[in-house]
Amino acid sequence: MIVNGVHFPVIQVLETPRGTPEYEEKRAALLQAFWEPVPKGYYLPADIIRDPPKDVSGIPSTCGILTPEEIAITENYDCTGLAQAIATKKYTAVAVATAFSKRAIICHQLTCCLSQWFMDSAVKQAKALDDYFEANGHTIGPLHGVPISLKDHIPIAGTYSSQGCFGSILKNEKDCQMIRILRDLGAVFYCKTNQPQSTMHLETDSHWGQVLNPFNIHLSAGGSTGGEAALVAMYGSPMGVGTDVGGSVRAPSAFCGIYGFKSTTSTLPMKSFTATIPPAELNIPCSAGPMCRSLRDVDLFMKLILSVKPYLEDPRIVPIPWTGLQTPTTRKLRVGIITNDGFIDPQPPVKRAIAWVKQTLSDSKYESIVEIKDFKPFAAEEAWSKVRRMYWPDGAKATIKAIEATGEPIHPLSAWAWKDAEHLGVQDTFSLLKERAERDEFRLQFAENWERQDVDVVIGPAFVGPAPQHETAFYWTYTSLYNLVDYPACVFPTPIKVGTKEEYDENYTPLSEECAQVRRLWKEGNFEDAAIGLQIIAKRHHDNELVGALKVLQQALGLP
Amino acid sequence: MIVNGVHFPVIQVLETPRGTPEYEEKRAALLQAFWEPVPKGYYLPADIIRDPPKDVSGIPSTCGILTPEEIAITENYDCTGLAQAIATKKYTAVAVATAFSKRAIICHQLTCCLSQWFMDSAVKQAKALDDYFEANGHTIGPLHGVPISLKDHIPIAGTYSSQGCFGSILKNEKDCQMIRILRDLGAVFYCKTNQPQSTMHLETDSHWGQVLNPFNIHLSAGGSTGGEAALVAMYGSPMGVGTDVGGSVRAPSAFCGIYGFKSTTSTLPMKSFTATIPPAELNIPCSAGPMCRSLRDVDLFMKLILSVKPYLEDPRIVPIPWTGLQTPTTRKLRVGIITNDGFIDPQPPVKRAIAWVKQTLSDSKYESIVEIKDFKPFAAEEAWSKVRRMYWPDGAKATIKAIEATGEPIHPLSAWAWKDAEHLGVQDTFSLLKERAERDEFRLQFAENWERQDVDVVIGPAFVGPAPQHETAFYWTYTSLYNLVDYPACVFPTPIKVGTKEEYDENYTPLSEECAQVRRLWKEGNFEDAAIGLQIIAKRHHDNELVGALKVLQQALGLP
Repeated sequence: MIVNGVHFPVIQVLETPRGTPEYEEKRAALLQAFWEPVPKGYYLPADIIRDPPKDVSGIPSTCGILTPEEIAITENYDCTGLAQAIATKKYTAVAVATAFSKRAIICHQLTCCLSQWFMDSAVKQAKALDDYFEANGHTIGPLHGVPISLKDHIPIAGTYSSQGCFGSILKNEKDCQMIRILRDLGAVFYCKTNQPQSTMHLETDSHWGQVLNPFNIHLSAGGSTGGEAALVAMYGSPMGVGTDVGGSVRAPSAFCGIYGFKSTTSTLPMKSFTATIPPAELNIPCSAGPMCRSLRDVDLFMKLILSVKPYLEDPRIVPIPWTGLQTPTTRKLRVGIITNDGFIDPQPPVKRAIAWVKQTLSDSKYESIVEIKDFKPFAAEEAWSKVRRMYWPDGAKATIKAIEATGEPIHPLSAWAWKDAEHLGVQDTFSLLKERAERDEFRLQFAENWERQDVDVVIGPAFVGPAPQHETAFYWTYTSLYNLVDYPACVFPTPIKVGTKEEYDENYTPLSEECAQVRRLWKEGNFEDAAIGLQIIAKRHHDNELVGALKVLQQALGLP
Repeated sequence: MIVNGVHFPVIQVLETPRGTPEYEEKRAALLQAFWEPVPKGYYLPADIIRDPPKDVSGIPSTCGILTPEEIAITENYDCTGLAQAIATKKYTAVAVATAFSKRAIICHQLTCCLSQWFMDSAVKQAKALDDYFEANGHTIGPLHGVPISLKDHIPIAGTYSSQGCFGSILKNEKDCQMIRILRDLGAVFYCKTNQPQSTMHLETDSHWGQVLNPFNIHLSAGGSTGGEAALVAMYGSPMGVGTDVGGSVRAPSAFCGIYGFKSTTSTLPMKSFTATIPPAELNIPCSAGPMCRSLRDVDLFMKLILSVKPYLEDPRIVPIPWTGLQTPTTRKLRVGIITNDGFIDPQPPVKRAIAWVKQTLSDSKYESIVEIKDFKPFAAEEAWSKVRRMYWPDGAKATIKAIEATGEPIHPLSAWAWKDAEHLGVQDTFSLLKERAERDEFRLQFAENWERQDVDVVIGPAFVGPAPQHETAFYWTYTSLYNLVDYPACVFPTPIKVGTKEEYDENYTPLSEECAQVRRLWKEGNFEDAAIGLQIIAKRHHDNELVGALKVLQQALGLP
């Protein structure tokens, strides 16, 4: 990547939009500062950066920078397993922090997934944990020595956070609540990850560059928690934390073949997660959730965070105790299957993944545990037009002003994000009350529709296709719908990958103009080998029941 | 009461503010319509209306209009007991509906507590229940035949509802969700109750007239659910339902010596409770709750309503299961006692009631179940200045417009309610985000302060004094604080009543200008025999723990 004439060892496919010369100078300095602490020994060969293969996911383990032990540490364990390995003294916290720090900076060169990298402080933190273990004979907590990566906007003491533009970068003196909890549990912090301009793309392209999909760099890793997804998928992190107001945890998780759990709002501690309240919060609040590689890790994260009763510090959190994988199932699980949302048909491989789920779960050997039904989600097109407005009750004025203040250029997907809201300008009490009424009425109708179809959970697409080509993630409908109604949803990996020559039926009739565009995008692109994740959705505040349902389905669907 | 030259048999102490002649004509017609279906045999002697005693609470049982059985039905049972009496065929539903309908219209003549009265439809509904019981051998539900009264704005099919002014009266074709649930449980609807103009007074004065305190008609019954409180206190209803965004369930309950429970928001079904969303909802959402005469009735109401899983229909409701009186207590209950909030000292009898609680619970015989501590609530004065603004993000424009549209005059307590917000005008997205941030920061600090004091529940005043003289309920600080932070709170009756000659210390120094005014109001008034209710508060969404704590304290405090 070349920024203002300076080379940085990061693969990029498209050129990042350029700002004013002053901005580009500051941007180059920021990237320079990023690279300063990185030992030259962690740099990949220049030819890989210059002429990368389509699939870069295997490079971290083959590049020779990681020792066999480091490869084992990073690849052979999920978060739960890693915690056990450290607690049983198979590995020291320092060895683990070193392995993940090294792997993360390799992953960054391949996908631009990081925003900050602080190996030194991570190793120091790990050393203190090892010393504690040595001195006390027990670990400091259940995440003792486990590295956790964080989306850039989440404050960690002594590092920087940003809110979706260059000008918003600031240094944090204090951990936010969730980080404090994780730190007390023993987690080690070693990097933060890339998020898009405005944090409102379903891709990740920012002043740090554009995050590439590790399985096919011509595709997006998704967004806005795209850095996390790429990093976790490449074993550069055992566990990431993201936020999701339109699909920002789920879409990247689906595109990168990992788990991504968007909890119901007010479930996880998000105190001080952003420097100021995003205007969208007035209409559609944001959720947080883990991104990881096993179901038990989703459960572990939720269980540990909620076990400390974070609602005592932040009473905005609803104190529903976590039962997760232990949630009792008293009768057959009723699973609705979404083939399409009546607005945009998903592209062929996603339809194939849905058909696979349906066929698998319809097998007579599961008939005692699960009942499969077709499910039609309520008014997806209407929901899409609502969220497009409701995300920006200020007409995006604050975001545009913050971006432009430093001479940063507006990225195409930013302009796309607020296209339907910008001309509406700044809302007032009366128009906001109208939007609130509209939103609540939608929520009620959605719930009525759900109840009428009589299901416990619903499985469906997480996006209109597999990972999209860069700068084409226009339609968030399959994820943003569940932000509008605030239902918990979890993306899980499937064994389905994009094959060759998958085509729409010759006589296919698009459901809408947007559906036709999605078909055009499919025809124009090459998505080979892209992962397909699907989404499971439960009723609002039924986060336990959602994870409990995944437990029921785990064996049948071969979920990790 | 004389309206536009027409006499209505309702005691009034102050004259209701007069509107335009056209308005007064329509108002007289409304009251005329109210009285049309009332049999002349239910009218109290004219001399009682003309020259009432100070305490009218005994008149319903002595006036001779009710039969001995009707007196027994209305006075000898709480809601739980009444349901049992009907289920065991001691009384028919028709006898019960008749008794409460008759008693309610007597109460109305004494206190102006009703807004609508529909005995005919109640008796018809009761008859159908009796027939059902006869035909099926079992009741239709656990509230079979139990009359329940409702605050005027809550929609019941076939009746009218209003939103705080004459012009907002409309006929409802459908039950709202809560009424549907109550109806399905077997409840009978027979009247709706008076609420103040704008529904934002802590008293109840409207186009229907001013609600008087049954124990001292020169005092207010409180508001905004004042009609309910007077009616329940006079045994004119076994159970009322109110709403509370600043104290509207609690203050009238305290003034009338009954229970009034304000649940955490999103606990009870409030779908369609108001015709439009009140602007205050953007900052301080409203709660609902039962008003009744026994602790087990509070529990019964919550248990029955939540047992039907109302969150399936309205996913805004948080699905925390009700445990109430059965909530397990695993250790000694830590109770904080508020003597004053650091802003306004309560008037002498309220201080005496607090001292009584403190002394009672400090008795060594309770030391194994309860630990008493002094408790200082966080920043009450700051909270008061915040809520004064936050209730009116539209500068009260919508409310003023709706009132004035029909020529209705603005009542003094309406103007007082929006005095600090009117000049701020209509807020926009940016100022609303600022208020949201301010509110949330306050909530966090409040929680921190609470945790530092290490208590499970807090007991304190429900108001700056006992029932105030009419048109002097200016300071809602002891209740509105818990709307700002959204903590559940329940008012309970105490044996304390206002005595004679209770004075402030001679050297008393007021805590604030507002505190000095409260002292002046005490000196000017005569509050003799007024009931004193106190308030118990628990952490947000700890509604079960609150009722569980009341169970622990019930015997010690002699709670009904």
